[in-house]
Amino acid sequence: MDKVNLARKLDFVHQYWSPKIVGELNESYVKVAKLKGEFIWHQHESEDELFLIIKGNLLIKLRDRDISLSEGEFAIIPKGVAHKPVAAEEVQVVLIEPKTTVNTGNVHSERTVTNEWI
Amino acid sequence: MDKVNLARKLDFVHQYWSPKIVGELNESYVKVAKLKGEFIWHQHESEDELFLIIKGNLLIKLRDRDISLSEGEFAIIPKGVAHKPVAAEEVQVVLIEPKTTVNTGNVHSERTVTNEWI
Repeated sequence: MDKVNLARKLDFVHQYWSPKIVGELNESYVKVAKLKGEFIWHQHESEDELFLIIKGNLLIKLRDRDISLSEGEFAIIPKGVAHKPVAAEEVQVVLIEPKTTVNTGNVHSERTVTNEWI
Repeated sequence: MDKVNLARKLDFVHQYWSPKIVGELNESYVKVAKLKGEFIWHQHESEDELFLIIKGNLLIKLRDRDISLSEGEFAIIPKGVAHKPVAAEEVQVVLIEPKTTVNTGNVHSERTVTNEWI
C-alpha cells in the first residue's frame, strides 16, 4: 500500500514496448511503459485498456480513425477494438487493464512480453 | 472512445469532494475530483480505490500511518482499509474504482454524493 511515483518508476524502464507492473486493484494492473516507433495491430478480446500519457505524444490508430494523445490525456480502447499505437518520439504512458491482458492481444508475436513488477 | 483531457475536465468541477465520471473500463469508472479540507473516515468493503494526483498534495490518513501524495504519485487503498483524505490546499485527483463504489464507503453521510458524468 505504499505510494508510487510514476516518474521514478519510469526511470527503471529501459526497453520500449515492455510494460511493467507498478500497482494492482480490482483484478487489474497499473503499468508504466515507454513506447517509441510502431507497434502491431492487435485487439484484446475481453479487456478494456486505458492509455494515460505522462510525457510525450502517442497516436493510437483505429481502423476508421486515429486518436492523438498528449500529456495529461487518456483514451480507453474497448474490448474487441483493433488498435495500433504509434510514437514518433519516445512517449511515457500509464496503462490500466485486467491482469489477464497480453500486450499483443489476440496476436502472438515476437513482440509479446510477459509482465513483471518493478 | 474519444480522448479525455484531465485538466479540461477538471475545469468543469466546481464542488469539492464530489467526484465526476470521465471514463469507464472493465466495470470501473475513471473519475476526477477537487478536494480541499478534511473528508470523513470510511472504507469500501469490496472495492479497491486508486488516487492519482494531478495537481497539489493529498494526505491519506490510515489507522496506523499516513500516505503523503504529490503530483505524479498514486496510491491504491485496498478494500476494507479505513482511510481519511485530507487536503490542506486544493488538490486535483483522478480516482479509479469499481462502478459500485460510493464516495463515503460504508458511512452514509450528508457528504455522500451520487456520481455524474461530465
